[in-house]
Amino acid sequence: MSFNLINEDILQQIKVIAGTDAVFTDQNDLENYSHDETEDLHFYPQVVVKPQTPEQVSELLKLANQNQIPVTPRGAGTGLSGGALPVNGGLLLAMEKFNHILEIDEDNLQATVEPGVITEVFMDAAAEKGLLYPVDPASKGSCFIGGNVSHGSGGPRVVKYGTIREYILNLQVVLPTGEIIWTGANTLKFASGYNLTQLMIGSEGTLGIITKIVVKLVPKPTQDMLLLASFQTDEDACSAVSAIFRAGVIPSALEFMERKGVEWVMEHDAISFDLKPEVSSFLLIEVDGNNQDVLFSDCEKINEVLEQHHCTEVLFAGSSAQKEELWRLRRTMAVSVKSNSVYKEEDTVVPRAALPQLMKGIKAIGAKYGFESVCYGHAGDGNLHVNIIKANMSDDDWNNNLKNGIREIFELTISLGGTLSGEHGIGLVQKGYMPLKFSEIHLNLMRGIKKVFDPNGILNPGKIF
Amino acid sequence: MSFNLINEDILQQIKVIAGTDAVFTDQNDLENYSHDETEDLHFYPQVVVKPQTPEQVSELLKLANQNQIPVTPRGAGTGLSGGALPVNGGLLLAMEKFNHILEIDEDNLQATVEPGVITEVFMDAAAEKGLLYPVDPASKGSCFIGGNVSHGSGGPRVVKYGTIREYILNLQVVLPTGEIIWTGANTLKFASGYNLTQLMIGSEGTLGIITKIVVKLVPKPTQDMLLLASFQTDEDACSAVSAIFRAGVIPSALEFMERKGVEWVMEHDAISFDLKPEVSSFLLIEVDGNNQDVLFSDCEKINEVLEQHHCTEVLFAGSSAQKEELWRLRRTMAVSVKSNSVYKEEDTVVPRAALPQLMKGIKAIGAKYGFESVCYGHAGDGNLHVNIIKANMSDDDWNNNLKNGIREIFELTISLGGTLSGEHGIGLVQKGYMPLKFSEIHLNLMRGIKKVFDPNGILNPGKIF
Repeated sequence: MSFNLINEDILQQIKVIAGTDAVFTDQNDLENYSHDETEDLHFYPQVVVKPQTPEQVSELLKLANQNQIPVTPRGAGTGLSGGALPVNGGLLLAMEKFNHILEIDEDNLQATVEPGVITEVFMDAAAEKGLLYPVDPASKGSCFIGGNVSHGSGGPRVVKYGTIREYILNLQVVLPTGEIIWTGANTLKFASGYNLTQLMIGSEGTLGIITKIVVKLVPKPTQDMLLLASFQTDEDACSAVSAIFRAGVIPSALEFMERKGVEWVMEHDAISFDLKPEVSSFLLIEVDGNNQDVLFSDCEKINEVLEQHHCTEVLFAGSSAQKEELWRLRRTMAVSVKSNSVYKEEDTVVPRAALPQLMKGIKAIGAKYGFESVCYGHAGDGNLHVNIIKANMSDDDWNNNLKNGIREIFELTISLGGTLSGEHGIGLVQKGYMPLKFSEIHLNLMRGIKKVFDPNGILNPGKIF
Repeated sequence: MSFNLINEDILQQIKVIAGTDAVFTDQNDLENYSHDETEDLHFYPQVVVKPQTPEQVSELLKLANQNQIPVTPRGAGTGLSGGALPVNGGLLLAMEKFNHILEIDEDNLQATVEPGVITEVFMDAAAEKGLLYPVDPASKGSCFIGGNVSHGSGGPRVVKYGTIREYILNLQVVLPTGEIIWTGANTLKFASGYNLTQLMIGSEGTLGIITKIVVKLVPKPTQDMLLLASFQTDEDACSAVSAIFRAGVIPSALEFMERKGVEWVMEHDAISFDLKPEVSSFLLIEVDGNNQDVLFSDCEKINEVLEQHHCTEVLFAGSSAQKEELWRLRRTMAVSVKSNSVYKEEDTVVPRAALPQLMKGIKAIGAKYGFESVCYGHAGDGNLHVNIIKANMSDDDWNNNLKNGIREIFELTISLGGTLSGEHGIGLVQKGYMPLKFSEIHLNLMRGIKKVFDPNGILNPGKIF
């Protein structure tokens, strides 16, 4: 795919469409949009534009399509797979002005929002009306809901509430050729031809630009309880996960954390926590609902399972502040790891009963290739984030040999029935591993779909495949 | 699209692939496969084949693809939109030998089944292990799970548990060109390129033949309660629906039934029921869970809402037998209507708060065009099945004028934020209405996707668009 540069004439047209104030070419501005949260990667766009309306997005895409200019859409830049990196330069479409909650429809338990709304801002607005939008990635305080849709995001509550797929009813999308469509209907069911809403979710900005999102909400549970369980081995912790479900309880969160992750959070964030020397790993377990007796009974069942799996201690969060602190321990783990070392993060996912095998295998692969890893994540979903730490690795090992180790991790993941990414997406940094999971036939189906939507390949080129 | 006939040479090759015993060309056999449950439509295939393995399906599709033979896949033939009708003749692929439950994996709460397994057979097998597969269309006793996937099926419990989309993790699919792929992974999350699993769901057999299905299961609730509420007006009943959710209760079923539907069931199925003269419509409301106190409290909240909406009587099902009887009332409604008159069924769906407007509008359109209708369905999802009865209509009105009335129903549905079908699919009989909902641009995206999967257009031609 060859692209053209944005020449002075095209730049002027961009300014006419979006307004001069919304177009940026300064080195400082370009720097801000040259990276997301993926490793230490930087790619510079040629021009940054911040449109405000679907019509402006449409005009911009038409212009780019006619002139074969690459366009990279960007939400809040919190992605972990490099999906928002403008690897071909060109036009960076920053969606931050699409930051309005357009409607919260209490009669239908639906809302219509723009893609640049911060996830937590929307969650809070829904909560004020007694409603729950349960899709809360660790970055909920800064990430945009549009980016969440584009990555098929998850978060801790997927285990009970499902992924973002189950909450997106309809999308307004600007196609790369400039047409504006709604992908579905504002209904809980849709059996009316191919489901383009579901196709857009997780397509990482390669098929169209999302400009409005219709979201399903649910009544907000009035109560929750939170437990932190300690284990002497990772395998005990991982094997308890599947057993909790077999006991008939569906927690609203079930998170795994390795000791080292907790240590780094304590160091980085000054969270005080009594970390016992014998503890190897933790499960953070939340149940929610409207009835305290039911929640206590759930906690009792969970406790029984934990005991059977050699849990050494269960800490019951007695106050809102304590809950907040335990969640902060989990949520700041990614940032803490990042602040300690250059790292690479893999987003492995397997059927949940395969977690002990996955953990054991990852550590063995680490020993073979000489890398350290910190693992944590959404164990209830079988979704383990593997943070590989550069630490004392040589640059040569880091840049050249490590990829063979990562390849082995993915081969293991796939052999256990899993896939390359549960919620972070493929983006730039995982695309080289796609052939491990997908045949050429399968990849060609994806490429064919891409071509139907984006015949000139201008939208987020260099991602996924 | 022009197709070839199956000549003697091709017929012999079909017999070699599937075995002579699995190939049928007798008029009687062709008759059996010439219709589904859609109106009184008949289209004859040239040859019926009943393959047993994905490899046989693959060889059959390669043969058909090379020779430009149309192929119509068929589950149990319970469809209501004509999706299984072989409108171009050719080869009918009857999937009934794919009737094995391959695994119920209690550790992961997953199962792997073949597409020809009867939905209720699978539900019962899961229930024996304390697990719930909640997707139960009215035809659950005879329909196949493969057909359910292909239609994006729903049923009464969608309102709490979601549609089939939320339960299908991975699909083994034979492409029209003969390759066999798995669309996803056996995981609860998947952010690894375009989601072909979700694209296959609801694609009505036009993109590939499903040969294995990996399903998510949940712990089966131990208790449920069932209420039947009577109303003097349809609008009171419909407006109570949305209010129940606003009261913070998510029922496990919330069904609407018009008086006439109940009358016809009583007549056709000899169900005895004390039908009061003043009653116009009913809501059948189920709650489920593991704690009796919570269910009682839910029922109390529901009762309050029902009173506010002028409910005249609430019948609480006191025994399993009474629950069974009430559910039979609802589930046999389609068959009862069908046994009374030639009919057409529309599967309208709107945001649930728009139900009163939809009901009122449908009756007004009926008055304008001179048709009677019986309405019932999954009111909790805003999904109303509209059965239009021929009764005393002239053949000319039925065959020529009625379609304008149906068009108006769909125009109303769409204007209320809804779509053409919630769970029955588009198939043959709704495809003429697709342009009401979708622009040519949108339809071309769907056609483009079809061409990526099926370049020669052999698979289920004449459906959706």
